[in-house]
Amino acid sequence: MAKAPVLTPQAEDFPRWYQDLINKAELADNGPVRGTMVIRPYGYGLWERMQQEMDARIKDAGAQNAYFPLFIPQSYLTREAEHVEGFAPELAVVTHGGGKELEEPVVVRPTSETIINDYFSKWVQSYRDLPLLINQWANVVRWEMRPRVFLRTSEFLWQEGHTAHATYEDARDYAARIHKDVYADFMINVLGIDVVLGRKTPKERFAGAINTLTLEGMMGDGKALQMGTSHELGTNFAKAFNTQYLSKDGKQELVWQTSWGVSTRMVGGLIMSHGDDNGLRVPPRLAHVQVVVMAIKGDEAVAKVRELGDRLKALGIRVQVDDRVDTPFGRRAVDWELKGVPVRVEIGPRDLEAGTAMLARRIPGGKEPVSIDALGELLPKVLEEDQAQLLRESRERRESRTSEVTTLEEAAEAATAGGWARIPWATLGAEGEAKLAEQAVSVRCLVAEDGSVPEADDAPGTVAIVARSY
Amino acid sequence: MAKAPVLTPQAEDFPRWYQDLINKAELADNGPVRGTMVIRPYGYGLWERMQQEMDARIKDAGAQNAYFPLFIPQSYLTREAEHVEGFAPELAVVTHGGGKELEEPVVVRPTSETIINDYFSKWVQSYRDLPLLINQWANVVRWEMRPRVFLRTSEFLWQEGHTAHATYEDARDYAARIHKDVYADFMINVLGIDVVLGRKTPKERFAGAINTLTLEGMMGDGKALQMGTSHELGTNFAKAFNTQYLSKDGKQELVWQTSWGVSTRMVGGLIMSHGDDNGLRVPPRLAHVQVVVMAIKGDEAVAKVRELGDRLKALGIRVQVDDRVDTPFGRRAVDWELKGVPVRVEIGPRDLEAGTAMLARRIPGGKEPVSIDALGELLPKVLEEDQAQLLRESRERRESRTSEVTTLEEAAEAATAGGWARIPWATLGAEGEAKLAEQAVSVRCLVAEDGSVPEADDAPGTVAIVARSY
Repeated sequence: MAKAPVLTPQAEDFPRWYQDLINKAELADNGPVRGTMVIRPYGYGLWERMQQEMDARIKDAGAQNAYFPLFIPQSYLTREAEHVEGFAPELAVVTHGGGKELEEPVVVRPTSETIINDYFSKWVQSYRDLPLLINQWANVVRWEMRPRVFLRTSEFLWQEGHTAHATYEDARDYAARIHKDVYADFMINVLGIDVVLGRKTPKERFAGAINTLTLEGMMGDGKALQMGTSHELGTNFAKAFNTQYLSKDGKQELVWQTSWGVSTRMVGGLIMSHGDDNGLRVPPRLAHVQVVVMAIKGDEAVAKVRELGDRLKALGIRVQVDDRVDTPFGRRAVDWELKGVPVRVEIGPRDLEAGTAMLARRIPGGKEPVSIDALGELLPKVLEEDQAQLLRESRERRESRTSEVTTLEEAAEAATAGGWARIPWATLGAEGEAKLAEQAVSVRCLVAEDGSVPEADDAPGTVAIVARSY
Repeated sequence: MAKAPVLTPQAEDFPRWYQDLINKAELADNGPVRGTMVIRPYGYGLWERMQQEMDARIKDAGAQNAYFPLFIPQSYLTREAEHVEGFAPELAVVTHGGGKELEEPVVVRPTSETIINDYFSKWVQSYRDLPLLINQWANVVRWEMRPRVFLRTSEFLWQEGHTAHATYEDARDYAARIHKDVYADFMINVLGIDVVLGRKTPKERFAGAINTLTLEGMMGDGKALQMGTSHELGTNFAKAFNTQYLSKDGKQELVWQTSWGVSTRMVGGLIMSHGDDNGLRVPPRLAHVQVVVMAIKGDEAVAKVRELGDRLKALGIRVQVDDRVDTPFGRRAVDWELKGVPVRVEIGPRDLEAGTAMLARRIPGGKEPVSIDALGELLPKVLEEDQAQLLRESRERRESRTSEVTTLEEAAEAATAGGWARIPWATLGAEGEAKLAEQAVSVRCLVAEDGSVPEADDAPGTVAIVARSY
């Protein structure tokens, strides 16, 4: 008798599968205020690991963490014209504080370019103060009409980097460095998602930027997810906030700026990239639980998994011990499978006699008996193999579901069929982009023929990647 | 000629000294919305280290991190009568979202007992789900009429733990465990502040708690600062949110709860405990910069400090290299002194010839030449000595400025003179407490004669610690 599926199968209803997985794997719940979410411990554990890995890379890139207030005077938002136009429809506004109506309403930060520039304009005096490289980990609020957990929520968690530089070139290079050495390195080598790096078209740029670099991942249903962005802001905010420095030549000059962010949306991307009909599959380098050591039943098995757990932890493996023998083993195994823990080591009375354990691998699937004593040596290899498999699957999916096309009609067809299309940007252009938008298809990014990021929208040979997206 | 002091001397004006230090050491700025603050990189580095140390201890105590929404429906707050009474005057209220007036206004969380209980009531079904041990790192908002950076701000950063237990005893023991093994251990052994552990009087309890445990530190001016609290909530929130579990006997029972928090206020406590007229002094175990290796001038010194910095980092010492030889050495030295970096290693051309460096110690003060080659061995010892000195000073201050008194008048006098008084609680009582309040003096906590935490307000031999406070 076939098991009833725990989740709606992906092929039947991908959005429903996504929601089922988030519920059953206990990743998150909807919050009481529409569009907000409660991130449950296992889901938050994924985000904490993302934070750790990203934070180390951000610090390696020279940026320091700081914290700016949640509340921004409404008047700040209006100083940069495009910026306010982009964010005004999404703002949450505080009108009362401490029992009184406020003289000036304050907005709950949707992003912090404005408030940060207010301080940069005080902190930056001379060229010696540049570059100024700041990052913050924070919550932000953008009122969301069509919320979906992790992907579009009225409140989400993110990091936002904000930097000021003496020259256009220095700012451009830093935005590119974050794009490549921080974001792409993390997404490819830790998340195991074979993202494409490109630049956004003028239509898709961040409100107030002169250039937006993006990382786009292909999800399990062939749609695209924008996983992160790094913006060149030019001198737009510097002009609005009068952020100037005294140059070596003794002149007052505007600073050149960047901003860049990734958010809890990446958790959604992780699920939709690697999940299957049995649940999530967490890449081992990311996993906060890489290995669960399970006692099937019996006191001896319980003692053994505790001891083995300690031994494997001492080797630097992130282990959880599951000794809840009062709960049926099958239910626990299904739960760990749903949660996507890469490896289960299962030990029962018969295994103990033989000195073996069952090694169950979530990513390639399958189970085999292995010597308990050999686990310390075996597990790191297995985890690295499984990490590589997820990235390979991600790349293969993207390659097999991306079509080279030459007309707008073909591009729209490929996208609506659940894939990506590559089309010369010179053929498509802003007009073609507008027509695709009528069919809910967008230009995800522009790339050069050799896969690099074009230096301008109109660089010869630029290719547009076209898809439906989240 | 004597140097002009960089800061207002403590003895002249302690509050002004505090504000001067925060500005000059670049720890924080006031935010544009009254009562909010910008935490600058060096100040945020202190908070990050607090987070790391606390987070490890919280996880050792079995709690898992999660994240609950910033926005709470206004109606939730009103469900627990004392709770809403306590927080109503401090709420920030969002009335508009996405360009429209909201049907129900939402409050920006002042604390999360209510919203968390809404989920606990869904997640907890049976005794098997208990204890449920959750923590979150988050920002909270309490509209502040008399703001002071780090100490009382309208928005602050904190961790808040929330737990549910099957029995009164289990909840009581867990609140005590957090109080002692997490908070006291961190504050005494990392912050180097000789806090007193006690219980709050009924008047000073958290709104909605049946018991509040507190940690009180004596600041440099003899006032008290509440550094953290751990609450037994009894079944108050469980009743309000119907948080029940099915017991082993098959009965529906209310859960017993705790909540506990520490915040960026600890940064203020750190400054006021250890700072002196030259600036901050950061305890080495906390410091994100334990040692700054400074080049005085010259290319060779620059090369040497870079190499030495790498070597010391490899030994696990948290080092910053200062090779900004374009900036006058004296100005840089004063800046590191202001910032309270425990040890400076200063290297110039003459030192290089001799193979020595000047070792400047911020905590005991003084400078001496040491062999560069011996630094790897010497520094860890010096750092531990200095850590111990700060704790010793903190203890000595508290002991020398605490009086044993027997009357309310003596208690008030000791407190207004800038010290603490110990008075039998049976002598003072709630009536005496109310009288002291008229002189802005409060009962900071109740302790047993042997220094332990009394099990009840009226336990025989209970002593009240009385002081002015921040």
